[in-house]
Amino acid sequence: MSRKEFRRLVSLEDARKALEPFYRRSAESVPLGECYGRTLAEDVYSRVDVPGFDRASMDGYAVKAADTWGADEESPRTLKLIGAIHAGDRPTLAVEAGTAAEIATGAVMPAGANAVVMVENTDSDGSYVNVRKPVTPGENVMHTGADVMMGELVLRKDTRLTSREVSVLAAVGLDYVNVYRMPIVAIMSTGNELTPPGTRLEPGQIYDVNAYAVGAGVRESGGIPLYLGIVRDTPEEFRKAVLDATKKADIILTSGSTSAGSSDMMFSTVGSVGRILVHGIKIKPGKPTIIGEVEGKPFIGLPGYPSSALTIFNEVVAPMVRHMSGRRDKAIREASARMALRVTLEGGREVLLPVGLLRAPEGLYAYPVEKGSGAVSALLDADGYVEIGEEARVIEEGEPVKVRLFSDEIAFPDLLIIGSHCLGIDAIVRMMADRGYTVRSINVGSMGGLRAIRKGIADVAGIHLLDESGTYNEPFVRDIPGAVLVKGYIREQGLIVARGNPLNIKGIADLPGRRFINRTKGSGTRTLLDLELKKLADERHTTLKALAESIPGYDVEAKTHSAVASAILTGKADVGLGIKTVADQNGLGFIPLRDEEYDFVINKNSLDKPAVRALLDVLSSSEFKLSIGRLGYRV
Amino acid sequence: MSRKEFRRLVSLEDARKALEPFYRRSAESVPLGECYGRTLAEDVYSRVDVPGFDRASMDGYAVKAADTWGADEESPRTLKLIGAIHAGDRPTLAVEAGTAAEIATGAVMPAGANAVVMVENTDSDGSYVNVRKPVTPGENVMHTGADVMMGELVLRKDTRLTSREVSVLAAVGLDYVNVYRMPIVAIMSTGNELTPPGTRLEPGQIYDVNAYAVGAGVRESGGIPLYLGIVRDTPEEFRKAVLDATKKADIILTSGSTSAGSSDMMFSTVGSVGRILVHGIKIKPGKPTIIGEVEGKPFIGLPGYPSSALTIFNEVVAPMVRHMSGRRDKAIREASARMALRVTLEGGREVLLPVGLLRAPEGLYAYPVEKGSGAVSALLDADGYVEIGEEARVIEEGEPVKVRLFSDEIAFPDLLIIGSHCLGIDAIVRMMADRGYTVRSINVGSMGGLRAIRKGIADVAGIHLLDESGTYNEPFVRDIPGAVLVKGYIREQGLIVARGNPLNIKGIADLPGRRFINRTKGSGTRTLLDLELKKLADERHTTLKALAESIPGYDVEAKTHSAVASAILTGKADVGLGIKTVADQNGLGFIPLRDEEYDFVINKNSLDKPAVRALLDVLSSSEFKLSIGRLGYRV
Repeated sequence: MSRKEFRRLVSLEDARKALEPFYRRSAESVPLGECYGRTLAEDVYSRVDVPGFDRASMDGYAVKAADTWGADEESPRTLKLIGAIHAGDRPTLAVEAGTAAEIATGAVMPAGANAVVMVENTDSDGSYVNVRKPVTPGENVMHTGADVMMGELVLRKDTRLTSREVSVLAAVGLDYVNVYRMPIVAIMSTGNELTPPGTRLEPGQIYDVNAYAVGAGVRESGGIPLYLGIVRDTPEEFRKAVLDATKKADIILTSGSTSAGSSDMMFSTVGSVGRILVHGIKIKPGKPTIIGEVEGKPFIGLPGYPSSALTIFNEVVAPMVRHMSGRRDKAIREASARMALRVTLEGGREVLLPVGLLRAPEGLYAYPVEKGSGAVSALLDADGYVEIGEEARVIEEGEPVKVRLFSDEIAFPDLLIIGSHCLGIDAIVRMMADRGYTVRSINVGSMGGLRAIRKGIADVAGIHLLDESGTYNEPFVRDIPGAVLVKGYIREQGLIVARGNPLNIKGIADLPGRRFINRTKGSGTRTLLDLELKKLADERHTTLKALAESIPGYDVEAKTHSAVASAILTGKADVGLGIKTVADQNGLGFIPLRDEEYDFVINKNSLDKPAVRALLDVLSSSEFKLSIGRLGYRV
Repeated sequence: MSRKEFRRLVSLEDARKALEPFYRRSAESVPLGECYGRTLAEDVYSRVDVPGFDRASMDGYAVKAADTWGADEESPRTLKLIGAIHAGDRPTLAVEAGTAAEIATGAVMPAGANAVVMVENTDSDGSYVNVRKPVTPGENVMHTGADVMMGELVLRKDTRLTSREVSVLAAVGLDYVNVYRMPIVAIMSTGNELTPPGTRLEPGQIYDVNAYAVGAGVRESGGIPLYLGIVRDTPEEFRKAVLDATKKADIILTSGSTSAGSSDMMFSTVGSVGRILVHGIKIKPGKPTIIGEVEGKPFIGLPGYPSSALTIFNEVVAPMVRHMSGRRDKAIREASARMALRVTLEGGREVLLPVGLLRAPEGLYAYPVEKGSGAVSALLDADGYVEIGEEARVIEEGEPVKVRLFSDEIAFPDLLIIGSHCLGIDAIVRMMADRGYTVRSINVGSMGGLRAIRKGIADVAGIHLLDESGTYNEPFVRDIPGAVLVKGYIREQGLIVARGNPLNIKGIADLPGRRFINRTKGSGTRTLLDLELKKLADERHTTLKALAESIPGYDVEAKTHSAVASAILTGKADVGLGIKTVADQNGLGFIPLRDEEYDFVINKNSLDKPAVRALLDVLSSSEFKLSIGRLGYRV
C-alpha cells in the first residue's frame, strides 16, 4: 500500500468553482404530458389568442345588451329566439335587435350579440325568451385574447413547470415543450470490500451504499443516475470503466474506496487518461475528494464513507446537476440553535458537523449525531449541519450556532427519548406511531440521557444504571429535580457463549483463562461484570485487577451487545456478557447472571404532553408486554 | 339542452369525506435504485449488523492498545509487523503482545487487536513499525453493529425516501423496497369544443387544458396520470369510456364540459353505471363537481374551467392521491395580508379567491388575479387563495385576510410592474431576466396602475392615458406625490381594417355606416376614439351621441387590441381602433390616426432598488429600441 499526503487542499468554494466550466445546459423537446417538474429552456410566446373567439362564459341567451335594459322581474323584456349555439359550434346566426340565441358556456358568441343573459334570469317557451334582468355590454362574455394574447410572453425561460404552468402551455396549444435535458450521471463504486445490496455478506464485506445514496442525490438534483456497478480496485479496470462512462454520461462519479491507497490509484489513473483539477478538499468530512476531467467530462471521486460522499455530493456536485437540469439554486435554510454538548475539534480544516435539532424551553439545541466514522444511521438523526471554521478548536456547550437545514421543515418529534439504546425502544416507537405520535430516539447512553433530562431537552430518558450497592436506576434519579422514574422492563443479563456451551462455562468463576470480550466502561453491563468480578475477587482473597489480568480480552471493549455476540459467533472470543435477547437472536448459548432493570426517566414538564401520556399508556398496555416478551424481556 | 339546478350542494369538507372510503393503499416492491421519493409501506428492521465486523476506520496499524502506552515522538514503541490486511480481506492473523498488522480503512480487525494507530503517527521499515502516539482500546475501530444493530428498527413505515433513507436501506443490504403503489389516475376530457394541444384550432374550438393541468396535479400528488383523451359528449361514448377506465385505473377523473347540459349527461350516465355520492359543491369555483363510484372505483367529474378543475382537484382529489401513494398531508402554509382592492361577492357559497401577493412598506397586499371566468393565465399570477365564507358579501380594501399559499415560498419579484398591458412590457421582462432580475407584471389597466403607485405597492406602472386636451399621461401623474414619469415609447394608433382595405376607409369620417368594433370605456384607445369622434361631430354640427348611433357596433366593446383584430379577421366587423403592431401581426390593413405615448410611472421610494436602476438602463439601451422597433413601436 503506497501512501501519499494530500497536497494543495482547496476550499469547498474552490472545489465548486473547479466544476463551473462544466456547467453546460442543453435542451430537449418533451411531450406536454411528461414535462411536469422540468424547467423551460426557452421563453414561450403564445401563437394563439386564448380564447380564440368571443366566448359565452355562462349558459343562457346571447343578446344585444341594450335590448335588456329596463327588464326586471315584473316587466321582462321578450326576445324572439333565432336558434341555439353549442360549445364547439361555428355559429352562422346573427343576433339583431329584438332577438336572442340560446347559448352554452364556452360557445362562440354570434354576430351582433354583445352580452349573455344567464339562464337563471330568464324563462322561455322555445320560441321566445323573457329576460328578467338587464345585462351590460360584455357581461358573461370572455373576449378574444382576454386570457392570453397572441404574441404574448406567457412563460419565461428557466421556469419550473408545475401544474399551473402546464395548464398555460396546454391553453396556448403546445404539445411539445423545450426543457433542459436532465444530465446523465454515471455512478460507479470502487473497493474490493463492496458487494451490492441483496447479496449475502461474506466476512469483511460491506454493502455498496454510496451508489444508491448518491443516485438518490442525483434524482433530488434533477439528474438521471446511471448505475455502472462495482469496479475492481485496479488501475486497468478502473481506467476502462471511467473511459466507458465518458461515452454514456455527462458526469462521472465514483466513490467507495476509503483507503488512501485506493485514492492514490484513482488519482494517478484519472491523471493518466485526463486531467486532475482538485486533489483534496480542506473540509471534514470529505478530504479525499478528487475532481478531474476525462474526455471533456467532469469526473468526481467522492470520499468512501456514505455520509462524507453524500455531503460532498450535495456541496460540490449537486449545484452542477441542478444547473444542468435547470433547477434553481437551492435556498439554504438556516436555524439558530445552541450546541447541546461541548464539541472539540482538531482544527486546520473546515468541519461540516451533522446535528439533530431539539426544542427546549429556551430555544433550539443542536446535538451532534456522529456515531463514529462513516456511520450511516447518523444521517437519519441529523436535521442539518453546523459549518465550523478551520480555526475553531472547541465549541462550548450552549454556544450559539447556525444550522444549515437538510429540509425545508424541521420535523420535531412529538416525543423525544434520549438515553441508552434498547430494542424495547423500537417497540415503543412502533406502538407510538400506531397511536399517531412521532418519536425521535437519540442513543447517547444512560448517563447522557440523564444529562438531557437535567437540561430539560429530553421528554424521556431510557436508562439502566447500576450503582455499587447493586441497585438499578433509582439512586441516579433521586437527586434530579423534575425527574420522575417510571418502571420499564427487565432484561436478563448473563454470559453469552458459543452454541451448546462447548467449554461448559457455568458462571463468572469460570472466566479466568477464557478468551473474553468486554463492554465499554460506564455501560450498565460493564458495571455489572466488575461488581460480580469484585465479589469473586473478595471470595478468592485477591484484587479485581489481578483477576482481570487472568482473563484474556478483559481490555477488548465492544460497544454493543451485538458486537459481543459477533465476537463469539466468529470465534474471536469464547465468552462475553450481554442480554439474553441478543444471544437468542444469534443462536448462542446463555448463562443467566442477574436481571437488569431498564427504566424510563420522565421530565416533569413533559407530563402534560399528550405524547407522554400516550407513552405511559403504551408502557402499561398488554400489547407492550407481549411485544417485549417476544424480545425476551419481561415486566 | 336540458337544464337542471344542482341539488343538495355539499361543503368542500363533505366532498372530501365522500371519497374517504376509497383511501386504500397497496404496496409494491421496487428496486432500491428506483425507490427515491417513494414512501415506505412497512417498518424496516435490519437483518444484519452494520458494520458486520469490527472495522478499522483509519489507515494504519492494528495493535493491542496497551502496547502503545507511553509512546511519544522521542521514545516510540517498536512493534513487529506480522502482515497486512486490506479492505475485503478475511484476516487469519492474530495480533499478540509486541506485534502489529498493517491495516487499511474498512478492513476487518484481526484477532487480538483492539485499536488502530493512524499511519501519520508511525514510521516503518517494512519489518517493524515505530508507534509515536499511544491509542486507547477501541480507538479508530468501528465495532460490529455500532452503526446499525441486527434487529434494530431502522426506518418506519410511511417514511418518505430521500437520499438519506436510501443510504440506510443500502447499508442494511436491501435490494428491493416495499413502498406504496402510486395510484393510476385515468384522465379523460369531455366537450365537443375540445381539441388536443398541437392541433390547429378550428373556429369555436379550444385546447384541452384540463387533462394536462390535472395530469400534472396527479404527478404532484404522487400518482401516475393515464391520459385517455377527449371523449365525445354523448351518453353512449361517455359510458363506454368510464367503464373502460375502471379496468385500467384506480381513480377516474373527467373534466372539460363547462355547460350544465353536459354535466347533466355525466350525472345520469354515472348514476346509471354506478352510484352518485356528491352532485355539486357549495363553493366557487367548482360548483358543478360530481363524485361517484363506478365498479368500486372513485369517479370525479371536475368542473370545466381549468382553474376550477385544478382547485377542486387540489382540494378534493389530491388528498386521496397523496394518501394512496403514502405522501403526508401537505402542510398548508398561510400568509397574512391585506386585500389590495375592494372585492364584492354574491354570497351563498364559499369562495376560494386566487390572489397574488405583493410586498408594501406596511406588509403584504393580496391582489385578486381573476381575469374573468376560466382565465388560465390568472393561475400564473396567483400565489395562493383567500378562503371566503358563504356569508361574506364584501371584503373592503385594506381588510386583513389569510392567504393559503400554493408553494412553500412566495417568490417576490425584484420588480413589480402594475398597469396597462403592452407587448413592450414582455420585451422589458425578458431583458430584465437577462440581467438577472425577476419581474412580475400585473395587468389592471392604466388607472389601476396609478392607484398601485399611490398606495406604494407597485415599483412601476405602465400607462397610456389621454386627457380631454389630448395630452398623454403627464396630467394624470402631476398630482401624485412620489411619482416620477419616465418616457417609454410611442405606439401608433389607427383604424384596423381588412387586408387591402377593401372598403377604402380613410379615417374617422368614414366610420358612420360601417360595422365597427369598439374598445372598453376608460381604455386609452376608447378615449382617443371619442376625442376624434367629438371633433368630427363638432365639424358636422351634431353630437357625439348622434354620431355614435350612426356607427353600428359602437356599443360592442372588445377588451383587447387582439379582440379587435379577431373581429375584423373573422368578418364580424369592418373596422376598429387599435395599435399598428396588432394589425401587422394579423396581416390586416392599418390607417394611422395618431401616436400614443406609453410611459412608465416610477415610485420614488423604489428608485434606489437595483432592479429599478436596471429598468432605467434597459429603457435607454439600444437593445430595447431594437426590440420595440420589431414590435412596430418607436422611442
